Amino acid sequence: MTRPRRENPMGLDSFFKPQGIAVIGSAGEGKIANVLLHRFIEKGVENIYAVNPKGQGVGRAAGYTSVQAIGRRVDLAVIASPAGSVVPVLEDCGSAGVPGAIIISSGFSEAGNPRGEAEVKAAARREGIRFIGPNCAGLVNTHANLAATLEVCPEPGHIALVSQSGAMGGLFMSMAAAQGAGISKFVSYGNGADVNAGDFLAYLRDDPETEVIALYLESIRNGREFMAVLKTVTAVKPVVVIKSGRTSTGQRAALSHTGAMAGSDRIFAAALDQCGALRAETLEELLDITKGFAARRKMGGNSLGIVTNSGGPAVMAADRADELGLLVSGADEDLRTALASFLPPHAGIQNPVDLTVEGSGGDYEKALKALLHSYDAVIALYVGTPYLKSLPVAEGIIAAAAKTEKPVFSVFDVGRDLGESLDKLGAADIPVYASGERAVTALNAMRRYASLREKGRRKPVEVPAETPEPRGEAGTVPEPEAMRFLNGQGIPSPPFLTACSGEEAAERAKELGFPVVMKVVSPEIIHKSDAGGVVLNVRNAEEAARAFNRLREVARGKTFHGVIIYPMLSFDREIILGISRDPDFGPVAAFGMGGIYTEVFKDVVFRPAPVDVPEALEMIRSIRSFPILAGTRGKAAAGIEGLGELLSKFSLLPFLYPEIIEADINPVAISPKGIYALDARIVTVKEKRSKD
Amino acid sequence: MTRPRRENPMGLDSFFKPQGIAVIGSAGEGKIANVLLHRFIEKGVENIYAVNPKGQGVGRAAGYTSVQAIGRRVDLAVIASPAGSVVPVLEDCGSAGVPGAIIISSGFSEAGNPRGEAEVKAAARREGIRFIGPNCAGLVNTHANLAATLEVCPEPGHIALVSQSGAMGGLFMSMAAAQGAGISKFVSYGNGADVNAGDFLAYLRDDPETEVIALYLESIRNGREFMAVLKTVTAVKPVVVIKSGRTSTGQRAALSHTGAMAGSDRIFAAALDQCGALRAETLEELLDITKGFAARRKMGGNSLGIVTNSGGPAVMAADRADELGLLVSGADEDLRTALASFLPPHAGIQNPVDLTVEGSGGDYEKALKALLHSYDAVIALYVGTPYLKSLPVAEGIIAAAAKTEKPVFSVFDVGRDLGESLDKLGAADIPVYASGERAVTALNAMRRYASLREKGRRKPVEVPAETPEPRGEAGTVPEPEAMRFLNGQGIPSPPFLTACSGEEAAERAKELGFPVVMKVVSPEIIHKSDAGGVVLNVRNAEEAARAFNRLREVARGKTFHGVIIYPMLSFDREIILGISRDPDFGPVAAFGMGGIYTEVFKDVVFRPAPVDVPEALEMIRSIRSFPILAGTRGKAAAGIEGLGELLSKFSLLPFLYPEIIEADINPVAISPKGIYALDARIVTVKEKRSKD
Repeated sequence: MTRPRRENPMGLDSFFKPQGIAVIGSAGEGKIANVLLHRFIEKGVENIYAVNPKGQGVGRAAGYTSVQAIGRRVDLAVIASPAGSVVPVLEDCGSAGVPGAIIISSGFSEAGNPRGEAEVKAAARREGIRFIGPNCAGLVNTHANLAATLEVCPEPGHIALVSQSGAMGGLFMSMAAAQGAGISKFVSYGNGADVNAGDFLAYLRDDPETEVIALYLESIRNGREFMAVLKTVTAVKPVVVIKSGRTSTGQRAALSHTGAMAGSDRIFAAALDQCGALRAETLEELLDITKGFAARRKMGGNSLGIVTNSGGPAVMAADRADELGLLVSGADEDLRTALASFLPPHAGIQNPVDLTVEGSGGDYEKALKALLHSYDAVIALYVGTPYLKSLPVAEGIIAAAAKTEKPVFSVFDVGRDLGESLDKLGAADIPVYASGERAVTALNAMRRYASLREKGRRKPVEVPAETPEPRGEAGTVPEPEAMRFLNGQGIPSPPFLTACSGEEAAERAKELGFPVVMKVVSPEIIHKSDAGGVVLNVRNAEEAARAFNRLREVARGKTFHGVIIYPMLSFDREIILGISRDPDFGPVAAFGMGGIYTEVFKDVVFRPAPVDVPEALEMIRSIRSFPILAGTRGKAAAGIEGLGELLSKFSLLPFLYPEIIEADINPVAISPKGIYALDARIVTVKEKRSKD
Repeated sequence: MTRPRRENPMGLDSFFKPQGIAVIGSAGEGKIANVLLHRFIEKGVENIYAVNPKGQGVGRAAGYTSVQAIGRRVDLAVIASPAGSVVPVLEDCGSAGVPGAIIISSGFSEAGNPRGEAEVKAAARREGIRFIGPNCAGLVNTHANLAATLEVCPEPGHIALVSQSGAMGGLFMSMAAAQGAGISKFVSYGNGADVNAGDFLAYLRDDPETEVIALYLESIRNGREFMAVLKTVTAVKPVVVIKSGRTSTGQRAALSHTGAMAGSDRIFAAALDQCGALRAETLEELLDITKGFAARRKMGGNSLGIVTNSGGPAVMAADRADELGLLVSGADEDLRTALASFLPPHAGIQNPVDLTVEGSGGDYEKALKALLHSYDAVIALYVGTPYLKSLPVAEGIIAAAAKTEKPVFSVFDVGRDLGESLDKLGAADIPVYASGERAVTALNAMRRYASLREKGRRKPVEVPAETPEPRGEAGTVPEPEAMRFLNGQGIPSPPFLTACSGEEAAERAKELGFPVVMKVVSPEIIHKSDAGGVVLNVRNAEEAARAFNRLREVARGKTFHGVIIYPMLSFDREIILGISRDPDFGPVAAFGMGGIYTEVFKDVVFRPAPVDVPEALEMIRSIRSFPILAGTRGKAAAGIEGLGELLSKFSLLPFLYPEIIEADINPVAISPKGIYALDARIVTVKEKRSKD
């Protein structure tokens, strides 16, 4: 009985909302299967079965020697038996019609046993079973009281967590529990041999109990597929990502100049940006940000009001806001009047509003309400004093928050015992932070999400759905051919001619008009300038003949395809365009200022290709040396729009011509007469599509 | 009875180790004086007295109507009476021979009453009393059971905390308490009208109970004096600083080009660096770092070993280490052999060492010991599992740490209940962090301290001890005069001549040799190029006469002092030198690459002046565009040593000539023949030293 793959009629519901659960593995005290079954029993989960060679039961879960023997509906098999037994267990599950399995068992690719993993994968496919794992920590659905994991079991809430690593998931959930933040669903997918990050994202997109998705990744298998899903999710709800292994993955060899500078992490960051997802650097930041979103309020702009009873922490928060680009602007006349109507004269009638040690809960409420008229979000910052307990402050904040949709975040001295205050704030969905800076970080993420989402509404560039990594022997296209190809794609160069002898060179140069530039054409000479393969400012026929001889000399002992000749072009600025292929994300476009700016300042920006014109313009504007393009020191602005079109066009090439694996135009000259490619390197392979 | 100021024979001991304490202020229930006295009584402090108009006692503290009436030795008066009463209270204290006072009372400069504060200051000076505050939160000396503050009273330990803000101090201490970190001394100095940050630093330098000093600052009154003290402290023990108000202080107007780009925060950061102090961005980071130092171990290099039972968190820690410049290098052959001798084959025999879920406390101990042979510090990272409790892990870590002086830091899943483990680790002085990244941050600070301290051993540049801010009307020195002055200081320029007529210009240009550059000389034309006041490449006498006329035209309606003429110099790179004055730190030196690098990339570095040659070289090497100076794309290296000498010489000018308030040499040309100033702007004032 084999169902076709990916046609599980329940989708991931068989994992998160199973009707019957079989736990396969030794039922002895302290064993994983035993612990899991006890957890199910504790939480009142029905229709649970223990499966082990002895048919031993656990508590009210009856024991069976096989899944088939259960004889009742089982949607989910949780497999914790030894690695070697997983294939027969899957076969048993398949025969019993089980649609989904969580394989907790380890001993597969993570332990140098990729063959074992491949066998599991094949068996599951044969049996029509979707599975999570192997080597995973299981999953949680708090809203169904389901905790098929050994990790800390969290309280229900609105943050979903998808984590490649079980331990990181456990850490996140124990931090969340300590801070009173609730979780909707958690899943650790371990080796991710079948169901993967993208599948969970798609499922959680449609999960009404999930407001925001936290994602911990160590690697991405198929970046393009992941991006396609991610885009559809961020259009509906925010996704915040931690990616670890930032510094080791960038070490792979890369052939091209721009490719070598890319590094997977920069590409990954650009991909997240492109998909409207947010990034966190630490687990704490991940929780801070997701807590903010879980409060279900909307940040409509970038202005921030702060109320405090103590100056220092408010200054720290304002500093951080300023650094991130949130505006803690001063109070205007109306607001000052409103504040002055109830605050004593020594209180700080400005933004931040400093109530001083004499502030009361009522003052917090009134000040917050006044600020909410003027700002897009407010933070209430309280430091414990002997004169003012936390409870009236919490009540004041809750009262102010009740009247608005804007974010109202709170900062409490969480080291101290705040008891009832935290419970009340939690019940009112007001996030509590340990410092103003952390609250500010969360608000800034909300603002970024709003603006990324705006951007996400643009229609995407249409490209062939899949561009397989081309394989085969790579070769550099000779410059004249590369230039003709680019010209044909609407990327202009100066006119050029080729020559195979000194006399021919002199003649062709004359046709083009002196002075000219002559360059050697040889597949073995890539860095022509360094090799002496470029002669500038050739002024007459005699010099042209001499230049030809010199270039032939440069190619001595190498394949020599003659010379390429261009008229000399005067230009004042140059840029670089690049295309490379990232192993995770496929084609990547690069843009940078030429020369020293790229070489010394590494002032290059990367994005998964293709980019449409608005995104190309964003790339161009994001480099540090953009002012040079925009016009400075008396130089006119370069045609930025034209550059954007050029970059967009260029970024499409690897999709139109999958045999192109790398391309650089270095430099593109920006002259008063136009934008011209002055040198081009295109590397292609004879494409051999592999069948896998 | 007036003692001379600053001659208190007890120094700050009268604050931290007082023999008798009078608490002045209303003794009613809930009032500050009442709360403080109860705290003293609870902690068993002897010789405490209540002073208030009614002479009311509190518990075993007898009541008096004045300090004089006590009739016994009182070293410290803690004043919590209303602002208006502070002056008479100080007079009473003076008459009773009290050497020190803590003025908790507020209502002074922080509340728009600087006059009240000045009166308090004057009264204290008259009475020979040193005081902390006003508007402060008091102090703590845990090793003397003294808590003259309303803030959380911490456990004894080795971290001293000096905080301008009482609230920030309270937050830090409650965080420290939650993490089991102990405090040696705490002081909040509020308005800091008398005893200030520098005084506390000097005192804590010699305090045997303090290993590390945490400092929270909002402003610095006298940057130079503070730096002088700070340097002597960091030579003995680490100082970690948070400075808030980073973004608002930078808004003051600054006259010079380089000065406008400085911003107090960059200067402050440079000053800390120069003094060998460390900086933290958040309170959490401040605690993480000081906790690390408090463990009293030495970080001898920059290599780091990690042992974990779970991959994810270790990867995050390794990423962070890599970003900060700590080396999580792979295990060498010997180490791999040592690890393989006791670890199972599926464990990660590398660095990080991954014991997997099967790791035991004994494995932690053995793996840490093995890593300690190869690395300068180790982190033991534990994530709770059902198979391994925290206690055996803690014991394994403690056993490994017992045999070494190197840092052994631990990371525990602190959200869970770790009970006895945390106590045992605390007793063994092994810091516990909530994440590997935070442990790494602390280790990196220890490494930085070691290298900054090394640097601190250099003999400082000798300069006059005080350079008062010059006052009076500022004026720009005409270029010929400025150039002659610089030449006299050993800063070369090309030869130059001046001319006041067309004929004279032609003659002078001929003397210098064509081609020449001619520039207008007018005190009203500062940006000569922008105003059309520079004529390049003047090739003969006729052109010189014409250029003169053109420049006279440029100065029409303005003061015109003729023209200055230089021979044309060919050069390929240019730099900028600058001197400005910071309101907090006085003279500041700036160095940057000229032209676009400074204007677009803001690639300029600042340091409090003067800088010696090694520090000047450090500045030069620290700019992003240094590779351009170092030689790239076929250009030879500029004479970096010579530039260092030039910058050092230049940075001394404001000390040798206090009337110089700003100076820029822009550009300094670097040519094959040497380094030459091509333009100079010096702004001086007629110095009027104020008497304050």
